[in-house]
Amino acid sequence: MLLRYFYDERLAQASYLIGCTRTGEAMVVDPARNVTPYLEMAQREGLRITHVTETHIHADFVSGSRELGSRSDATIYLSDTGPAEWKYGYAHEPNVVLVQDGDAWSVGNIRVQVLATPGHTPEHISLLITDTANADAPIGIFTGDFLFVGDVGRPDLLEKAAGMADTAERGAQQQFVSVQKIKQMDDYLQIWPAHGAGSACGKALGAIPSTTLGYEKRFNPAFRFGTDDEAEFVRWLLHGQPEAPRYFARMKHVNKVGPQLLNELTAPQPAIRATLDAAIARGELVADLRPAEEYNRGHLRGSINIPATSSSYTTYLGWFVRYDQPLHLILPSHDEAHALRTLTDLRAIGIDDIGILTGPAALTGELDALPATDVREVVRHMNEGTTQPLDVRGLTEFEDLHVRGAMHIPLGFLPTRLNDLPRDRAIAVYCASGYRAHIATSLLRAHGFRNVECLCTQSIRWANEVPSESSRVPITIA
Amino acid sequence: MLLRYFYDERLAQASYLIGCTRTGEAMVVDPARNVTPYLEMAQREGLRITHVTETHIHADFVSGSRELGSRSDATIYLSDTGPAEWKYGYAHEPNVVLVQDGDAWSVGNIRVQVLATPGHTPEHISLLITDTANADAPIGIFTGDFLFVGDVGRPDLLEKAAGMADTAERGAQQQFVSVQKIKQMDDYLQIWPAHGAGSACGKALGAIPSTTLGYEKRFNPAFRFGTDDEAEFVRWLLHGQPEAPRYFARMKHVNKVGPQLLNELTAPQPAIRATLDAAIARGELVADLRPAEEYNRGHLRGSINIPATSSSYTTYLGWFVRYDQPLHLILPSHDEAHALRTLTDLRAIGIDDIGILTGPAALTGELDALPATDVREVVRHMNEGTTQPLDVRGLTEFEDLHVRGAMHIPLGFLPTRLNDLPRDRAIAVYCASGYRAHIATSLLRAHGFRNVECLCTQSIRWANEVPSESSRVPITIA
Amino acid sequence: MLLRYFYDERLAQASYLIGCTRTGEAMVVDPARNVTPYLEMAQREGLRITHVTETHIHADFVSGSRELGSRSDATIYLSDTGPAEWKYGYAHEPNVVLVQDGDAWSVGNIRVQVLATPGHTPEHISLLITDTANADAPIGIFTGDFLFVGDVGRPDLLEKAAGMADTAERGAQQQFVSVQKIKQMDDYLQIWPAHGAGSACGKALGAIPSTTLGYEKRFNPAFRFGTDDEAEFVRWLLHGQPEAPRYFARMKHVNKVGPQLLNELTAPQPAIRATLDAAIARGELVADLRPAEEYNRGHLRGSINIPATSSSYTTYLGWFVRYDQPLHLILPSHDEAHALRTLTDLRAIGIDDIGILTGPAALTGELDALPATDVREVVRHMNEGTTQPLDVRGLTEFEDLHVRGAMHIPLGFLPTRLNDLPRDRAIAVYCASGYRAHIATSLLRAHGFRNVECLCTQSIRWANEVPSESSRVPITIA
Amino acid sequence: MLLRYFYDERLAQASYLIGCTRTGEAMVVDPARNVTPYLEMAQREGLRITHVTETHIHADFVSGSRELGSRSDATIYLSDTGPAEWKYGYAHEPNVVLVQDGDAWSVGNIRVQVLATPGHTPEHISLLITDTANADAPIGIFTGDFLFVGDVGRPDLLEKAAGMADTAERGAQQQFVSVQKIKQMDDYLQIWPAHGAGSACGKALGAIPSTTLGYEKRFNPAFRFGTDDEAEFVRWLLHGQPEAPRYFARMKHVNKVGPQLLNELTAPQPAIRATLDAAIARGELVADLRPAEEYNRGHLRGSINIPATSSSYTTYLGWFVRYDQPLHLILPSHDEAHALRTLTDLRAIGIDDIGILTGPAALTGELDALPATDVREVVRHMNEGTTQPLDVRGLTEFEDLHVRGAMHIPLGFLPTRLNDLPRDRAIAVYCASGYRAHIATSLLRAHGFRNVECLCTQSIRWANEVPSESSRVPITIA
Repeated sequence: MLLRYFYDERLAQASYLIGCTRTGEAMVVDPARNVTPYLEMAQREGLRITHVTETHIHADFVSGSRELGSRSDATIYLSDTGPAEWKYGYAHEPNVVLVQDGDAWSVGNIRVQVLATPGHTPEHISLLITDTANADAPIGIFTGDFLFVGDVGRPDLLEKAAGMADTAERGAQQQFVSVQKIKQMDDYLQIWPAHGAGSACGKALGAIPSTTLGYEKRFNPAFRFGTDDEAEFVRWLLHGQPEAPRYFARMKHVNKVGPQLLNELTAPQPAIRATLDAAIARGELVADLRPAEEYNRGHLRGSINIPATSSSYTTYLGWFVRYDQPLHLILPSHDEAHALRTLTDLRAIGIDDIGILTGPAALTGELDALPATDVREVVRHMNEGTTQPLDVRGLTEFEDLHVRGAMHIPLGFLPTRLNDLPRDRAIAVYCASGYRAHIATSLLRAHGFRNVECLCTQSIRWANEVPSESSRVPITIA
Repeated sequence: MLLRYFYDERLAQASYLIGCTRTGEAMVVDPARNVTPYLEMAQREGLRITHVTETHIHADFVSGSRELGSRSDATIYLSDTGPAEWKYGYAHEPNVVLVQDGDAWSVGNIRVQVLATPGHTPEHISLLITDTANADAPIGIFTGDFLFVGDVGRPDLLEKAAGMADTAERGAQQQFVSVQKIKQMDDYLQIWPAHGAGSACGKALGAIPSTTLGYEKRFNPAFRFGTDDEAEFVRWLLHGQPEAPRYFARMKHVNKVGPQLLNELTAPQPAIRATLDAAIARGELVADLRPAEEYNRGHLRGSINIPATSSSYTTYLGWFVRYDQPLHLILPSHDEAHALRTLTDLRAIGIDDIGILTGPAALTGELDALPATDVREVVRHMNEGTTQPLDVRGLTEFEDLHVRGAMHIPLGFLPTRLNDLPRDRAIAVYCASGYRAHIATSLLRAHGFRNVECLCTQSIRWANEVPSESSRVPITIA
Repeated sequence: MLLRYFYDERLAQASYLIGCTRTGEAMVVDPARNVTPYLEMAQREGLRITHVTETHIHADFVSGSRELGSRSDATIYLSDTGPAEWKYGYAHEPNVVLVQDGDAWSVGNIRVQVLATPGHTPEHISLLITDTANADAPIGIFTGDFLFVGDVGRPDLLEKAAGMADTAERGAQQQFVSVQKIKQMDDYLQIWPAHGAGSACGKALGAIPSTTLGYEKRFNPAFRFGTDDEAEFVRWLLHGQPEAPRYFARMKHVNKVGPQLLNELTAPQPAIRATLDAAIARGELVADLRPAEEYNRGHLRGSINIPATSSSYTTYLGWFVRYDQPLHLILPSHDEAHALRTLTDLRAIGIDDIGILTGPAALTGELDALPATDVREVVRHMNEGTTQPLDVRGLTEFEDLHVRGAMHIPLGFLPTRLNDLPRDRAIAVYCASGYRAHIATSLLRAHGFRNVECLCTQSIRWANEVPSESSRVPITIA
Repeated sequence: MLLRYFYDERLAQASYLIGCTRTGEAMVVDPARNVTPYLEMAQREGLRITHVTETHIHADFVSGSRELGSRSDATIYLSDTGPAEWKYGYAHEPNVVLVQDGDAWSVGNIRVQVLATPGHTPEHISLLITDTANADAPIGIFTGDFLFVGDVGRPDLLEKAAGMADTAERGAQQQFVSVQKIKQMDDYLQIWPAHGAGSACGKALGAIPSTTLGYEKRFNPAFRFGTDDEAEFVRWLLHGQPEAPRYFARMKHVNKVGPQLLNELTAPQPAIRATLDAAIARGELVADLRPAEEYNRGHLRGSINIPATSSSYTTYLGWFVRYDQPLHLILPSHDEAHALRTLTDLRAIGIDDIGILTGPAALTGELDALPATDVREVVRHMNEGTTQPLDVRGLTEFEDLHVRGAMHIPLGFLPTRLNDLPRDRAIAVYCASGYRAHIATSLLRAHGFRNVECLCTQSIRWANEVPSESSRVPITIA
């Protein structure tokens, strides 16, 4: 048996290829939409991908199961264990097989057994693996978003992101049962989860690739509850879960009905200035991915700057994009390989409708500029009350320490809360490094707030610490 | 004034960017369809592409004028000098300007003047360039396919490739007039042609990037004819021109009506074995681009092997493709950047309808194999007359030396001459290195000739030179 | 705690980086000599490499511990558990700490405990890891070459490769004790070994990245022996171990005294033809890494062709190189990045003294050529006894099936057994694919055997199966 | 005849390969030190480099003639036309041939004739090329630094950069004679110069790759002087030449005695913090090539930041480096290919002695930080006279417009003029974009000026234009 790990750092998402080196058959578990790495690995190892499976309907990325099925002769194994509203929409396609708790199949000499583990989602399954060529007992379990290193999957995503009322508590109860069930299994079993540290599918995922059931029984907090502690478990599980990104609702839907194949997508258009202006006029999102300095020097009025210099730029696009409209992109360069990577990044989270994809050559004619911020001046105005501080960091960051009098709107929520902002005075946006504040600044300016300043906590602190005779700054980080 | 050369080695095609560094405006002359290099160069040099022009309706590659116009704010300047049947079909688009002999425009401080130079084609123009910031006389001429280094453009392509009767001689007469006309201009002028050595648009192009009018007057054979020698010139010009590749007719058409924009193309499909088999059954071309050894080990019956290991693979695809049907491709790997480059290669010669684009993962199930050739055995059979030698090299190669009794069909013509081949005995295909013979072998086998052997001249010679007692080989290269 | 896997496919060698995300400290376990990947990973994860350790004196690759210590501020932890002859020669360097069974240290919140596990080598240690921030019991063990997935390390390398008499049995007994000792530990512990499938450090390594102690207790054959079965264990362990590559002896030595730092190495020289000829005349190894076809068309007499087209080319260089002489290389191209990768490949197995490093530009003047083989003819001569078949495959391949009358010398041993070959008749070398036979052919020709033919088993079989009237081939694969 | 252009954008330096496609011989003219591109091109075109030549002893980059000679079998043709002090120091090497005015040799069918053209340097030659296969008169001239597009080479470099008294005027007189001489030749000849726009070897080089003699006769200002106008020509030529970079003197010396072969160079060392600190303590230059933001967050006290984000970073290294000491580098990453490119960049201008080459892993322990500048505050202090403005731009930039009261020291001269700076008050360095001011800031801080602020003209202008009630800023750009 051969096992290879795949890990998408951007999404903190793990997928796996297992293969039988004797028969040349291979299976991919929880594939991402960019299926090239699996095909390349199989080719390198002399294997054919004959099986594809996934543990559940993912909420945080577009599943590659259907795509991989279309690019190989593989059969796709999908869970049929959930209630009616959690059935796959493409289950009728000829290469799909639906499976229930207890079902099993073989990939060469490898035996795969289905274990229903609802909780994170109602239809969630885990996959028990036995290398029958060498052993008569299982070697490990692909646990998907049920069991992570040091954590279990959150049951509240459906309610929070997909707006399905009263599912969180029910999910937590199911998760309790699933945990009690797996507790009965052997300590030595390997646990291969679908996410690592940084994923929003749990609250405390560890940064090691895999774990063992015995270690989790000992140190994973979800396992410290006894068979009578269901209520306590539910309370513990539902507490302190991070905010669910807005695009999760869309992912749920897409993965349930079946993601479009990449070759079915419409190719994005190049564009000239007029086309971009028209898109902005129609209220569509034009995201300028160039570095902040280039945007500051000259950009289209109404475009939002989300610099691709940070690897988390797709996350913010995911918050801002409206899936019923095309997204338009201005790239930093005309390099086609770079354009291809950008498309791959966005398609990973289901942003399929790229209307315009263009380089800076389209930025002709008159452009807006964004002047540098005079930090000390802004700090003075915040102290005098003529400028409103706006904190766009996360809740825990805000609670830790913030500027006195600051409003708090995490960046992702800003597009839906523009009406809460004062229009009678200047706004000073800040975050930790300035990256999120810069995005927010461009967003506010695009929505008519022209008097916006951009700061980072470090510069504010520095303005406090280096007083000059003319302006002794009384502002403090509250 | 800034001037940059672009050269596509595969097509032996030259294009140019000239820019005015004071005003930031730039013009591209005879752009190829992959316009990214021009956009990147302009960005790097701080220029905007404001003008695009081409010297004529190209026959050997898809023009990038319309594409470049769509990706920038550039105006496109097209010749209006030809007869009715050589008018551009997209001249009505808002960013197109039609020009006549004597017309002129400015790119910043650069003056561009139109010089009608028919001959290669009726609507052919050249562009006289003056750097008005530094000089009051021209610096050089973009001569397109009118005047090359050491040669002039052939006038017979329309007749040979596009099947337009009686145009060759008329073109040669026009070419004579154009040559006499340019002869009057100053020796010091630079000549920037649209092709270099290896192009099929002339017969003897030199391998240096540019030349001067004075040097051509002295040493270009086209200039040795006096004003009374028209008939002699016409005879000389029409003699010894190489065969025109079959796809030239298509290019002419495409460039006249206006090439599709790249973003308007349908994306190719991935595919499984069954889809490929169905395409072959429908009689469509399935080209396997993997190396010969991999193809020999296992391939789809009916697929043609055109190994992408040689840079001339697109030329053979250009001979074989039928533009009214999709072309299907099996690539050597699953790498997406490689797939993108392949598409770019093919789109350069207008192969836009790629039906299926897939990696070797689609090669599942039972496959055909191609055994190695026993050279000495085949040579013996050729001598005994039980095997028919088939030479697929060019005419000059064949005339130089060939196997006694060999049929001669250049590889490009093979698809249309299959009926000329004997079906009652084995066929031994050969060429110089074995590359063309290998393609021919896979083509013949795909068309039901199962008893085909593949040789190269070197191996034949070797079989002659190393006789064994059992078979003293009398065959000779005739 | 953060854990990252590194895997060198060429050497089937695993190494690991563990880091404490709270304090920013990190440790690398069993680093390879090319330490860039560790430094890059640490930079990306915001960690500093503060500790380096290795489980034992490696025999199959150059350790990167000393190199990594010189490129960071890390302290190096080395085993002091072996007898006098297995003490590290660079233990006195200021950043080295020697450790004994039971010693422990901390990497931030990670606790590292030394476990003496002799057997594979006398000084072998394993490292028990506890993530004290989250747990009060260990999470897993870095077992080096003691315990693999499905196997244990072989104890006979010192005897076979380093020529140390009577150490194999003693090592097997120690290995027995080590296995009994680890058997007492908990099932749930993860096992992170230093090698995967394909390594010559054991006989049956599995192709999955890591395992658990419980799984190995159940299915690893080394664990099925009871406390009284030492003799049986020793017999089992010493049986059927593969041949140890010749360069292993050198690696042992190098890693013991301390490998040279990369910046201390002398840069290789470019060269002209005369320099290469002189090197060959001095009896030094000139390895031509170009593809076989290019070598066949023209090469230096006396140079050996080891095509870099196969990823195992370094292995054969490792068999052929004489560590007391410079190795000279002719590369396929002049690309410097490629030259750098080649150097990195060779330095990984301690080939530090590259005398000449040159591209094909040095191949001027008169060159040797290698004609193609007429398989059927050679087969006939083998049958007639006028040509001696020589099988250069491995022992198991040979025992499976071979040409009747063939001599058997595995390729790696060929340089030392040239005197066993007949000089009175032709030699026909063969292997499975032709790769090893081709190398052998060039080697034999370089040593004066000019009448050498190169075959593969497939072509022999084909010559048997497609008889012609003139030569019915009676030869069989014995 | 085949001709290929090579152009190094960083150095604005042109070199050429010409080859005879019939005989396969090729010559490189004025090669750069990184000779790989020539070797690769020759391999691709099926040519052997048999001849190497250069037009003169270059002052602005290390010649690759000797390097290329050592990597091929080529003979090197060097000028012997200058006085005793301008003879090549490696002329005695066996593959060197010295040539005089009128000498000639053949590269296959290509005839090369030497034309003495002193002026830029005493030993300068040009090379007249005739393609004898097709013509009985020359096609063009490689004019080196004698004749450029729109300019002629400056004759004052020896005096300014190499400190050779009274050579500038003598050179100008020679240049006059050379121009008069070439004026006699035919208009149609192509002119292939050794530099393009941006080079410091002349004052007004055009941005097109090549020109013709006729065009230069008409529009190059050097050609407008009649045979009696020598004095006027000399005055014109010596006026307005830009400052010669400090490293030019070194280049002259190196290229005269013969540059070291790359394989003779000592490999740079990796390093830990302590080694870097020691180097700084010894007064050696430690250049930190990371982006400014990373340097600002944490750097070694005493290191100079020259961000490799600009392609002109090597120019500033060339001004600052002391060729009698090792230069130490801190790179932005641990990527080895990047390190190799950096070495290639530096070796191009003769910086061979890289002592330490290390990534950011060496930046351990306590680090210095550089706080952001409060522009308005600094502007206020400049107005109040408590901060000294320092302009580090070029003379023409300074003369155009500058801050009232500013000192002017171009960045390149700053290391030698530190004593001119006031130590009793703060210094505010500025340039156009902030790049040079940032380098200057790090340089000043490294030399004990701790109270240094960094500005750009744009931010100063902005501070002026957006007055606040507290500080109406009277400062103006003078």
